[in-house]
Amino acid sequence: MEAIQQLLTQLPKGIVLMSKENTRPFECDGLSVYKQKPLAVVLPENIAQIKQVLKICKDNNTPVVTRGAGTGLAGGAMPLENSVVLGLSKLNQVKSIDVENRLAVVEPGVRNIAISEAVRQHGLYYAPDPSSQIACTIGGNVAENSGGVHCLKYGLTVHNVEAIKMLTIDGDELILSRQDDGLGLLALMNGSEGLLDIITEITVKLTSKPALARVVMAGFDSVRDCANVVADIIKAGIIPAGLEMMDSFAIEAAEGFAKVGYPLDAKALLLCELDGTQTQVQAELDSVLKVLSGASTLKVSESEEERLNFWKGRKSAFPAVGRLSPDYYCMDGTIPRRHLADMLEKINELSKKYQLRVANVFHAGDGNLHPLILYDLNIEGELEKVEEFGTEILKLSVDMGGTITGEHGVGVEKLNAMCHQFNAKELAIFHKIKAVFDPKSLLNPGKAVPELHRCAELGAMHVHHGKLPHTELERF
Amino acid sequence: MEAIQQLLTQLPKGIVLMSKENTRPFECDGLSVYKQKPLAVVLPENIAQIKQVLKICKDNNTPVVTRGAGTGLAGGAMPLENSVVLGLSKLNQVKSIDVENRLAVVEPGVRNIAISEAVRQHGLYYAPDPSSQIACTIGGNVAENSGGVHCLKYGLTVHNVEAIKMLTIDGDELILSRQDDGLGLLALMNGSEGLLDIITEITVKLTSKPALARVVMAGFDSVRDCANVVADIIKAGIIPAGLEMMDSFAIEAAEGFAKVGYPLDAKALLLCELDGTQTQVQAELDSVLKVLSGASTLKVSESEEERLNFWKGRKSAFPAVGRLSPDYYCMDGTIPRRHLADMLEKINELSKKYQLRVANVFHAGDGNLHPLILYDLNIEGELEKVEEFGTEILKLSVDMGGTITGEHGVGVEKLNAMCHQFNAKELAIFHKIKAVFDPKSLLNPGKAVPELHRCAELGAMHVHHGKLPHTELERF
Repeated sequence: MEAIQQLLTQLPKGIVLMSKENTRPFECDGLSVYKQKPLAVVLPENIAQIKQVLKICKDNNTPVVTRGAGTGLAGGAMPLENSVVLGLSKLNQVKSIDVENRLAVVEPGVRNIAISEAVRQHGLYYAPDPSSQIACTIGGNVAENSGGVHCLKYGLTVHNVEAIKMLTIDGDELILSRQDDGLGLLALMNGSEGLLDIITEITVKLTSKPALARVVMAGFDSVRDCANVVADIIKAGIIPAGLEMMDSFAIEAAEGFAKVGYPLDAKALLLCELDGTQTQVQAELDSVLKVLSGASTLKVSESEEERLNFWKGRKSAFPAVGRLSPDYYCMDGTIPRRHLADMLEKINELSKKYQLRVANVFHAGDGNLHPLILYDLNIEGELEKVEEFGTEILKLSVDMGGTITGEHGVGVEKLNAMCHQFNAKELAIFHKIKAVFDPKSLLNPGKAVPELHRCAELGAMHVHHGKLPHTELERF
Repeated sequence: MEAIQQLLTQLPKGIVLMSKENTRPFECDGLSVYKQKPLAVVLPENIAQIKQVLKICKDNNTPVVTRGAGTGLAGGAMPLENSVVLGLSKLNQVKSIDVENRLAVVEPGVRNIAISEAVRQHGLYYAPDPSSQIACTIGGNVAENSGGVHCLKYGLTVHNVEAIKMLTIDGDELILSRQDDGLGLLALMNGSEGLLDIITEITVKLTSKPALARVVMAGFDSVRDCANVVADIIKAGIIPAGLEMMDSFAIEAAEGFAKVGYPLDAKALLLCELDGTQTQVQAELDSVLKVLSGASTLKVSESEEERLNFWKGRKSAFPAVGRLSPDYYCMDGTIPRRHLADMLEKINELSKKYQLRVANVFHAGDGNLHPLILYDLNIEGELEKVEEFGTEILKLSVDMGGTITGEHGVGVEKLNAMCHQFNAKELAIFHKIKAVFDPKSLLNPGKAVPELHRCAELGAMHVHHGKLPHTELERF
């Protein structure tokens, strides 16, 4: 391959990885059931090298799949067979911290948690906190517009990014900032899943660490009661810093793993974090406790240690569930809060239908579901069953006026679902906008936005917006 | 004109206005120094008629300038000589209110304040509150991504719009919603100044009316002290519902007009609104009063009547200043909060240099300046002096790391300034994105994004981002 030859010749030794042993860690992202070896993995050390890679790939029509830490769960960073993977992990410097204006300028390979660590001494932190925040990078967060437990109150990545520097496939550098944002391009790049640009620098907003944070842990005898309380808290005018829900299977798994004192007899558990000044927290706590009067168990964290302990169970829920089964599939969909109870019931029915266990962990405050479907990849046909199960959940999400992804993105996983959420004209506009930045379609081609013929083959070309009738969902 | 003939033939009587008397109210927007008679003004009554207008205009290559209430201040809705003005004032129905999910579906011609009036009985309101909110329409608000006093805490229009229905120039309807927002197109349409689409329906977020709101009114002996307090309040971790500043001239004018009890001896006045529950407001009030300990006069509203009274002065500041002079020019720029004091000093110097009086009214919390320059259009050369003065203020804004518009948009007023804020590659991308939606450039052509040759002629093609050196600003 001419492109690979040029990469090897023009870049310093050790930047281009070719051998199977070296490229294996890059063959998949967190959606590890799908794997693909790329032509090569390139790990540049600076912007000049990134530009070289882009030039070579463009000249040779070689697709480029940009990658952060590869923690994504929808296959967005999965290599393509004929592609070069452009890994940005070596660009991992916090370049500057502006305490007065609460901004930090960081390279794309900086891990999410490392930003908060770097500014902790100033009483600041970076608010969006994906579950993978120890490992995932800020560049990947921007590419996926990542969420997290605290995004209910503090916003998604897009709300916490002040500016980015990006390269187009042509190697042109653009600076997009919130305050200069001519046509709203900053929001366009957030969540564009590597299809439009290579992000080379991010200016993130920092948030003041609240004086106090307390977590209310409430167990319920009924899933429906617990789910209804979620909407009631928001209706009471309170936006908790986090509002998470777990079903009994998730409670059991998390407690077995983390031993944090979750009530094992509860059918559902709610964790509700309140933060602010002492007075603010007390005022919100009073209101929340009133709403939670029907809970079967109720505890409020009395110390920072106890608060972290309450979260420890939730944060370890995925691995905790994971150890109960050879494999698990983490779904991601969003529905209006008022349908949470109905959705849980339907997922339970589906669990029986497919004979697959499901643990439910929700960012309940914003209606973002994460059903974890347990299965065994070694049992023939089981993966297909899981995929079908997942499709039914997404179908239900759209049916309830929701959407096929909450925070994991589309990647390769949800290309078919995109055919149902958007119509041909909308998808055509997405493709045209891609062409503005990447006319030869070399940046992560085939991901995130399905080709129109794919949708046509699915027989599924029509609009599915929340407010429209969903009589066509059978085609899903 | 073939287009006009077709409009007259195909649309019902009374929809197409042609006579000078009828089109005169549409010759300008709030930037009334620039006027232009269009070919015709069309006031359709429904979506079908809008589609007819678009088809006729597209077939005849006739530009379309979409218009709400025409309260904009940058000439965005000013007609072009060869254009049809598409006024959406007759689409003025609140279509539905969803109290549980705090959403309202409205037509573009609904006035901003009318949304709040329609949902008041449910304890809700629509948060963004441009000064023109009695008159301006929600469609125009989306087109300009309008701000207002309460946007510091509650966000700009873009943060309060959940979904839109829009038509392309081809008459295709797209639905863009926050939760289905594939590529971030909703943010792209917010603030696109009529260059990309015609907005036909908006789903807005509603906000719970806070239990309590109180305003602190603080007078200062020094402008610098007052300006510094703005940053100190934010640093104290408080985001006030509104944080407005006025200089002595604005205080004097507002007090003379509205008689609300502003301290006439103060050099600068701060209005700081806190809202929430009783406990929250008291807690924030305690913190704010500590920060304000250096104020020369200090009053906290003790009743809703008194609170509205404090705001009445601020809200009437523009007309109050206006009656002191035959004409005034309202500038709009944004700077980092920490430079507020320096900026006010420099504007004072410029006021002396140009021998033109200036009253300063600031959305201080987000650094958004509104200097009002007083002048007399009938004095020859005075408008040119004002324009030069305005350009110097924008130049200072960019120089301080700010931007040429805070909330009024670019329109025709700031086309030259755009050449300085963005470079050729960035402007080229804006044009390409316009072409995705409007390949023949028939929607408000020539506005908002300058043609590259215009910038080249200005000799001003270069990047001016906040963080870069500004050695080239002399060319401004």
